Amino acid sequence: MPSLSFRLAYIQASPIRRIAALLDEARRKGDIISFGGGAPSLPPPKELIDYITVLLKEKPQRTVSYCGTRGLPELRELIAEDLKKHFGVDYDPKTEIIITDGGTEGIFLALSAVVDKNEEVIILDPTYLGYNEAIKLVGGRVKKIPVTVENGYQPDLERLKQVISPLTKAFILLSPDNPTGRIIDPEFVKGLVDLAESHDFWIIYDAAYKYIVFEEKDTWPDAIPGAKERTITINTFSKEASIPGFRLGYATGPKEAIEAMERIKQYVSLAPNTVGQYALLKFYEDGIKDRYLREVVIPTYKKRRDLMYELIKEYLPEARTVLPKGAFYFFVDIRYYLEKMRRDDEEFANRLLYRKNVVVIPGSHFGDMGKGHVRMTFVSETEDRIREGMKRIGAYVFSYL
Amino acid sequence: MPSLSFRLAYIQASPIRRIAALLDEARRKGDIISFGGGAPSLPPPKELIDYITVLLKEKPQRTVSYCGTRGLPELRELIAEDLKKHFGVDYDPKTEIIITDGGTEGIFLALSAVVDKNEEVIILDPTYLGYNEAIKLVGGRVKKIPVTVENGYQPDLERLKQVISPLTKAFILLSPDNPTGRIIDPEFVKGLVDLAESHDFWIIYDAAYKYIVFEEKDTWPDAIPGAKERTITINTFSKEASIPGFRLGYATGPKEAIEAMERIKQYVSLAPNTVGQYALLKFYEDGIKDRYLREVVIPTYKKRRDLMYELIKEYLPEARTVLPKGAFYFFVDIRYYLEKMRRDDEEFANRLLYRKNVVVIPGSHFGDMGKGHVRMTFVSETEDRIREGMKRIGAYVFSYL
Repeated sequence: MPSLSFRLAYIQASPIRRIAALLDEARRKGDIISFGGGAPSLPPPKELIDYITVLLKEKPQRTVSYCGTRGLPELRELIAEDLKKHFGVDYDPKTEIIITDGGTEGIFLALSAVVDKNEEVIILDPTYLGYNEAIKLVGGRVKKIPVTVENGYQPDLERLKQVISPLTKAFILLSPDNPTGRIIDPEFVKGLVDLAESHDFWIIYDAAYKYIVFEEKDTWPDAIPGAKERTITINTFSKEASIPGFRLGYATGPKEAIEAMERIKQYVSLAPNTVGQYALLKFYEDGIKDRYLREVVIPTYKKRRDLMYELIKEYLPEARTVLPKGAFYFFVDIRYYLEKMRRDDEEFANRLLYRKNVVVIPGSHFGDMGKGHVRMTFVSETEDRIREGMKRIGAYVFSYL
Repeated sequence: MPSLSFRLAYIQASPIRRIAALLDEARRKGDIISFGGGAPSLPPPKELIDYITVLLKEKPQRTVSYCGTRGLPELRELIAEDLKKHFGVDYDPKTEIIITDGGTEGIFLALSAVVDKNEEVIILDPTYLGYNEAIKLVGGRVKKIPVTVENGYQPDLERLKQVISPLTKAFILLSPDNPTGRIIDPEFVKGLVDLAESHDFWIIYDAAYKYIVFEEKDTWPDAIPGAKERTITINTFSKEASIPGFRLGYATGPKEAIEAMERIKQYVSLAPNTVGQYALLKFYEDGIKDRYLREVVIPTYKKRRDLMYELIKEYLPEARTVLPKGAFYFFVDIRYYLEKMRRDDEEFANRLLYRKNVVVIPGSHFGDMGKGHVRMTFVSETEDRIREGMKRIGAYVFSYL
């Protein structure tokens, strides 16, 4: 076999995908409760399914035909209206929006469009584990600033200033956050926009969970004067419409950046899938989206969140965590227990799966600052099963005390 | 706005996409006949649509949930069985097959997995226009060998030897070919495998049109001893199942290469869309695929091909072309007419659209050797409209003679 590319030497396989493989194996053995991957367990809005099944039957050829690389114009128009209404931001659907194969492709295309070899991209630690590898994949270097439970996982502008260098090309911010559930402080965003202007770097704002918020709203950088010309915002339909299997999202940004992302996408995936886009036309109709979020998604996840919070306090009283204000994860500092158990977070998660059939994600996967933590999602399991899973975790930990 | 990546400086926007935009505009003015983009005009097999609409209604949440990065295991098993049956090749569905977002992502992932900066990738001239840009996107250099109508667009092993260098990392071969319809000579493939072994480079075999063949079968390199450990084969469902809008294809190769492509795909698009994969499970059931190809796809396209061949002889008697043995394009040398008209192929195509509402693709888009040619597809229009379109082309050319 001829050699493979050097780039493989510095790109890790996603540990969450490794866990998914372990999980597959474990499922065969018994009843697994998953607080692991962030896959919605809610069915998508019924109206979407009804609409797309009729369309597939009545116009099969049109519904499964190619669309342009930027996606259906009518879907981009509906997105622009929706963002205007909810975040007060104006995008031209023709030039400032592109449909992507999920948020993952949005991040990859944005980084490909702006980052050159050895340029630096700043991310938080801990943060979503895909950024680190995507930055390296496009040839960039990763710089990190730490966030801690003491500050409610809010990044600090002074720490950011310290890592900015002439090589800084972009800053990636995820809000609401995975793994911590933190919603970004609007004051930080204002300071970030100022720094991005004075040091001339891009803000890549990942708004994957923008509509999964429980008390307060998310701040969009683009609503702040001066931000729009240096911000690319990444979105996904996987969470808000519960349709991860359609692999659809979108990005907004200056028209030159969107044009660059389109040009790269032509040779990466050609065009987004048409079937899912047609289903999404219905998502924005008749208030279906807002009603689905208000009546189904938010109440369901909020109840699960509140329940899990109580259960963490009950079964892991010495753990430290922050009630997530958005997204659907708890990031739990379990160092007190790990010390008693003489284990690290990775061993903890592996043994917990093996002994109690419960999946959690080791915090160290999200960065060095995540060591001694675990991430637990409440998105995949019902309240009863969240109760059962937390009870198992309690029993597992108690056996070591 | 901060600067964009240098990579944009050497990646061209796809001219076919530019034509699609022109086309959109032209459509508003009148009745356009398209011999342009290769978008199937046949509906997909009815059984696929029936199956997926029932599944979406009965199990909406499962049908639109995430799958693993390599795609559904049961679909990979069906693919392995199908390839064994039709091409006599053995692939382990667990380790040697990955589902991709269409053939485009397959090419991009394969190139990302094997090509490093400044390594050379050899392609034919003319050939599919996406290769050139995809090679540059991953940092590689493009080397070309010419093929001509005189040799039936078969590449020449001696010419290949002349361009092989110590930097040669891969050779991309498309068969049946776009834009020429040529099916590769098995003797060339044998010689290519020998050269790839002795010079240690990869063969990337694009089998996008493997089942769209009219008289003879396509040769798979992997069926030749020694080829399998250095060949990645790229496939798409867009053509054979008439479902381009689902954006699904697959790649086969040595397990190390597939693992590398999986690792990159995690950060490019995460996973292929699940809905389309479920539909495809039905494609391989009950002989549906083979029957659809035998009774619908091949007879429809063959009739259109034979008709277009007669019409080219009638309306462009001085043009030179080869009857395509596969795929769905004629590549027509119209230099005789261009000389009389004092136009190049690009001007010819633009004026033809403007004056007669007929779309053809300028041959120069497929490489320097394509100058003075046009590509005309017979996949998008019915026989009546092919007649009408060719008549318009004849009238357009005649007005200059």
